[in-house]
This record gives sequence, structure tokens and C-alpha cells, in this order.
Amino acid sequence: MDGSARIERALNRAIELGEGPGAPPRLAAAMRHAVFPRGARVRPRLCLAVAAACGDDEPELTDAAAASIELLHCASLVHDDLPCFDDAATRRGKPSVHRAFGERLAVLAGDALIVMAFEAIAHAKCSPERLPRVILTVAGSVGMPLGIAAGQAWECEPEVDLAHYHQSKTGALFAAATMLGAAAAGRDPQPWRALGERIGEAYQVADDIRDAAADEDEMGKPAGQDAALGRPSAVSELGLSGALARLDQLLKEAIAAIPACPGEGDLKSLILAEAKRLVPKHLAAPQAA
Amino acid sequence: MDGSARIERALNRAIELGEGPGAPPRLAAAMRHAVFPRGARVRPRLCLAVAAACGDDEPELTDAAAASIELLHCASLVHDDLPCFDDAATRRGKPSVHRAFGERLAVLAGDALIVMAFEAIAHAKCSPERLPRVILTVAGSVGMPLGIAAGQAWECEPEVDLAHYHQSKTGALFAAATMLGAAAAGRDPQPWRALGERIGEAYQVADDIRDAAADEDEMGKPAGQDAALGRPSAVSELGLSGALARLDQLLKEAIAAIPACPGEGDLKSLILAEAKRLVPKHLAAPQAA
Repeated sequence: MDGSARIERALNRAIELGEGPGAPPRLAAAMRHAVFPRGARVRPRLCLAVAAACGDDEPELTDAAAASIELLHCASLVHDDLPCFDDAATRRGKPSVHRAFGERLAVLAGDALIVMAFEAIAHAKCSPERLPRVILTVAGSVGMPLGIAAGQAWECEPEVDLAHYHQSKTGALFAAATMLGAAAAGRDPQPWRALGERIGEAYQVADDIRDAAADEDEMGKPAGQDAALGRPSAVSELGLSGALARLDQLLKEAIAAIPACPGEGDLKSLILAEAKRLVPKHLAAPQAA
Repeated sequence: MDGSARIERALNRAIELGEGPGAPPRLAAAMRHAVFPRGARVRPRLCLAVAAACGDDEPELTDAAAASIELLHCASLVHDDLPCFDDAATRRGKPSVHRAFGERLAVLAGDALIVMAFEAIAHAKCSPERLPRVILTVAGSVGMPLGIAAGQAWECEPEVDLAHYHQSKTGALFAAATMLGAAAAGRDPQPWRALGERIGEAYQVADDIRDAAADEDEMGKPAGQDAALGRPSAVSELGLSGALARLDQLLKEAIAAIPACPGEGDLKSLILAEAKRLVPKHLAAPQAA
């Protein structure tokens, strides 16, 4: 089974856990709306790729960890789209959850998706000693002090720590993706953090480029939001060509950060293939190696 | 160390995990505001009481489970108080989190508290086979299909399933409290569900009585909200004296539902003592036994 099929199956299994007897139907529908149809699934695919490079000897745990990361990503999008944050009308080319289901169900759908991320992992059959490390890695990526909630919170501080802002808002889930792939395969996750962080930074720069240079049809969400909302952006800081050069540099650093492992070559190829998805089609794709 | 001291210590340890280097200060402050100073801590005290009745042979796990339940309760209060739900100005006698820190930080504080609930448990040293059961019990109490998020979501459905609404909105965390106490002590949690559910129902009826009959100073939050917002209430359904009789009946059922265990007598005494806290001082306390 290829990675995408594994991820969709794992996400379906997790969502179905929440659709049992007694579930309020509109919240169940809001959660499905948030998770399906698929986005790029870049984080769970990265998790699976790292697990494969490390042997992937407990694939049920790997699948649950990959699903967990995507559920948390979806939860963060639902809450980031709320009126009190971005008030985004569209996401992945369709109405945002609060526009489709109302603000209350959007708050609750995000909450329930966070819970489901942990539930999916605890449901997976695995060596018992792997579970706490996997759960702590997930929790670290999404909570405080350095997870995505912390990253979003920097937008509410009078003085922004930009390094922590980027590291936590975007980097945290990418670092978790690589670390979880390793942890699910029984490896120490720490050596895998740098790879995820570099890819996360690259993704943030690419997102800034897309926000500045792409149109809404291509992105599936409103473009030009960074400038409109005065948010920090690699394009406003470095210009468009400077941002493209920075993206190229980050991808080189990511490749260099891959720890020694049996599947090192395949992992490198996958990361380079991913990089081509990150920038608008009318801009030249960066060459990382 | 008495139960209250254990709970406050466990909550402090959990919150401190989120206050490490790099934490955005206002989100950290919002989380503390949501959790301290203490509310009644009725759910974690119930968890500890059940664990004690079952032997409490891994108290670090018990403490983490008790803290987890309280963190989730606090998270649900923060989100329930948001403008799109109750728009409550006060909570536990001080400004609600969104009034003190703004709506965005209130959303994020709730999210981060949910994450922290799982993190606290995964941090606890425990027999590895106990961890998945504890985490699944926590997740079941707060997510879908029957946790508190589901309970809150019934308020957004065109047709409300009242049994599921009450069971999940209030009962779920109480059922989790008793089940977690048992699970943390290495027992099968299922026989402990009924006790938690009856206490949860009793607590809901008592809350309805307080909402109808107490004043804001006594409750630490606005009174008369059920009638103002047209929410289902035991008082509107049964009248005040009927609700008091129902509360008495539920406490009798709770006592009868205690599974056989070494600390059965102490547990019964504790539940009866708790019952006295539940109704406004000017109403006669029910006699459950």
C-alpha cells in the first residue's frame, strides 16, 4: 500500500472512532469537512517517509502517528480560520468550517480533532515502551511552550520573538513529523528534529511566496493575506527572488540534516520531489541538489 | 499529603511544563488564569478517591490522571465562555479568559490545555500497560462521540438528543474521573462508569438548582443563564423541589453503584460530604443515605 492510501485509511479510521453511536451529527460532519477531501498531506507523508527510512517495523503505530499529525494540522487550520483570527472564508478550495457549520461547531471540531489525534495513537497496537515517547512528541508539537498553539499565540504578544514564532507556528509540526516517523520505528527522535525544522522553514518560506505570488484558485484559500494583515513574511523581508534563494538554501540544509539510516537515499529523493510542489507553477522550482 | 495538595501540585507540574523557555508569556498567563486559583476540583478529587479505594499503587499516574481531568474541565470552561457560546464575563469570581486576555488567546489557551492533559499523563512514570487505557479513557471523556465536546455540540443541533446531551456534556468527565481512578490503580475501569455517571447527573441537577436559586456572588459566575438562554434544566422540567428530590435520588443511586473494593466505606463518606457542597447555602442539603 502506498503512503497516501495508508494515510487516508488511518485518517478514516480515526474519524470513524468519533462517529460512533450517540455522536452529534453536525459536529461529526464538521470534523469530516475539516479533514476530507485531502489536502497535500505533506506532514504525514514526511512522517511515513522517515519511518520507512528507519525500518517501519510497527506500521500500525506509524500510521496512527502520521494521522495524528494531520489531524492536529487540520485542527489548527479550523481554529486559525475563525473570525477572531484570520476570518478565512475558504480553505482547500471550499468554505472554511466556521462558514459551513458556524463558529461554535468550528471551535468544537478543532477541540475534538486535537483529542482524536491522541486517541488514534493510543488505539494503535505497539510496543508499550514506544507509546509515551510518541505521545510526548505529538504533545510537544502542538501545545506549550513550543508547539503550534504557542506559535499562533505569538501573534497576540506585544513583542514578538520571531525565531520562536516561526519555529513553533510552522516548524513544530514538521519537526514532529520527522521525529514521530523515527519514534514510531523505535528510534531516538531527537536526531531527526533538524530535518523537520529545515523542511518546516522551507515550507513557511514557500507559503509566503505562494501568498504573495499565487492566486486564490491555485492556493485553494485567499491570497495576499500576509500583506493585508501585516504578518511577518519572507517575501516582505527578502523580496521574491531573495525568498526563492532562501528556499533553495533551506532545502540543501534539510538534505544535509538527514541522519544516517538504511533508507537515506529514498528519503532524499522524496524531499526533493516534495519541494517541487511548494511554489506556484509560474515560478521556477528551486533546485536543491 | 492530602488530596487537594496532590491535585494542586500535579496541576502546577503540568502547567510548568508549558512555561518552559520560548513560551509566549500572555498565553502562559492565560492558561494559569484558567486553572488557578482553584475551583472546587470536584472531578480530580473524585478520581483520587476512587484510586485510593482501589489501592492507588501508582500514585504518580493517579495524580497525572486527576490533573488531566481538571485541565480538560478548565479547557471546556474557557471555550464555553467564548462569545460564540455563553459570552460569560466572569468565571470562578474573576474575569473569564477571553475578557481578560482576548478571544484569540482564549481559543489557544483551551487548545493548549487539552494538549497538556495528555502530556501530563504521558510524563508520568507508570506500568507501560496502564498508559493506553488511561489515555483512551481521557480521550473518550472529552472528544467524540460521547465526550464533552460532543455534549456541547448538541446545543448546535436542530434536534437535541437530551440523554446524550446530558450524558456527554456533564456526565462524561465525571465518568472519566471514577474510571481513571480505577484505571490508574490498575483496575478495569468499566465497572466504575455508573458511579461517575450518577454523580455527574447529580452535579448537573445541582448546577441547574444553583443557576435558578443562587446569586452571582455565591456561584462565582452569572446566575439565571439557563432560563435566559432557554437551555434544558432540571428546574424548568421538575420545579425547584422536584429537582432537589431528584438530586437526593441520584446520590442514593451513586452510593449503590460503588463497586466492591477495599476502600468502599471511605468512598461513600466522601461522596456524601461532596453532596453538601452542591446546593446553595439557603436550600436544605439533600440527605442521600
